[in-house]
Amino acid sequence: MKNVMLTIEYDGTNYSGWQRQNNAMTIQQRLEEAIKKITGNFSEVIGASRTDAGVHARGFVCNFFTNSKMPSPNFKMALNGVLPKDIVVLDAREVDNSFHSRYHSLGKKYVYTIVTGNNRPVIGRQYVYYFRRKLDIDKMKNACKYFIGTHDFSAFKKKGSSAKSSVRTVKELTIAQEDNLIKFSIVGDGFLYNMVRIIVGTLLEVGLGRFTPEYVKDILDSKDRSKAGKPVPALGLCLEKIFY
Amino acid sequence: MKNVMLTIEYDGTNYSGWQRQNNAMTIQQRLEEAIKKITGNFSEVIGASRTDAGVHARGFVCNFFTNSKMPSPNFKMALNGVLPKDIVVLDAREVDNSFHSRYHSLGKKYVYTIVTGNNRPVIGRQYVYYFRRKLDIDKMKNACKYFIGTHDFSAFKKKGSSAKSSVRTVKELTIAQEDNLIKFSIVGDGFLYNMVRIIVGTLLEVGLGRFTPEYVKDILDSKDRSKAGKPVPALGLCLEKIFY
Repeated sequence: MKNVMLTIEYDGTNYSGWQRQNNAMTIQQRLEEAIKKITGNFSEVIGASRTDAGVHARGFVCNFFTNSKMPSPNFKMALNGVLPKDIVVLDAREVDNSFHSRYHSLGKKYVYTIVTGNNRPVIGRQYVYYFRRKLDIDKMKNACKYFIGTHDFSAFKKKGSSAKSSVRTVKELTIAQEDNLIKFSIVGDGFLYNMVRIIVGTLLEVGLGRFTPEYVKDILDSKDRSKAGKPVPALGLCLEKIFY
Repeated sequence: MKNVMLTIEYDGTNYSGWQRQNNAMTIQQRLEEAIKKITGNFSEVIGASRTDAGVHARGFVCNFFTNSKMPSPNFKMALNGVLPKDIVVLDAREVDNSFHSRYHSLGKKYVYTIVTGNNRPVIGRQYVYYFRRKLDIDKMKNACKYFIGTHDFSAFKKKGSSAKSSVRTVKELTIAQEDNLIKFSIVGDGFLYNMVRIIVGTLLEVGLGRFTPEYVKDILDSKDRSKAGKPVPALGLCLEKIFY
């Protein structure tokens, strides 16, 4: 029995997120189907994260156990031969049997992309959120610092989230603007359900002038979900990297 | 009766090209349907070019005549309200009744995008051609100069092309590489059927070392389609701009 770690990229447009479910296609199911085609046996694939429906990934990590005699690196080409066009294995390697892609993750980097301007995007629209109204980027950048550090993010998690603790550490949060693209980049030790999308939605409220940058601190302190902004849509979100 | 000129962007992935046809969906048909929804009457839309199935455009130009009382610039927002997600009107304006988007075009700019490297692209794969083999970019750049100028491009048009003359002027042809992206940019007074795709395909033969850069001159002189390279796939091609 060996433990194979995969790094994968996927276009989440046509999937109901990572996790296997009844009556909806997911990335996990596609990978498990592909592995079964190659090894002849079902292997459960353990994912580092449960990305939502419509979220994309450039550096998702997962692992599975198999009795296959195929050298682990060869799974890259073998799986790519049977996976659909919207999923690709970037790397396959053997890891210690104790490795668990979710439990051993030290952190994650997400990027959220917004397109502004007068015209809704067409080419590449699957990967960006179109936001027409004018934003004060300096105010938004100013608000970022309040998120940095270790906080109780209860106000920034979707109600019904099952995580035991709402304390997380945000290590980096930056906003970069180039022409009509705005990219939010966030690194943390872990994220609560919808946390990245609610943080970006809250920063948009700051950019619109509805919240002052300093109000972010009040929202955090309140631990009250109703005070923060609305989550931005899934399509602009991409899981860039998982740290181990 | 007024003449309305539209500049549009479209994602050609799900279309059988520009021109209306039976049993296949095209950009022209979608626009004519949208105009009819707004004005109540059918207007034929005259396109500047007949892009192939799967080709994209960021600056396609077309025009139509209408008796509608709506101010011409208002067609932008009105059409965008009824067009599907993969077509957007960037500009609408009234032009002289003598204006014809195809006859009056002075030139066009196309960009062809290739992705190289060990991994097939996933995010954005709809807009690029994945070419795995190693290319000698310097040789390809060297070959570009032979295309510049006024030539008989018979060797670079698809057989069965109905154009009366095969003489065209290529004003610019450049290759830019950034990381694993290679962008071919070409400006000319007009292009024969499949001409851009055959030129790029021929440059790939140069990059692979199968043709010398100088051999491009022999291919042009031969006027023999069988001597040039294969056309590259439509998905990497984008009509960037039409000049008037």
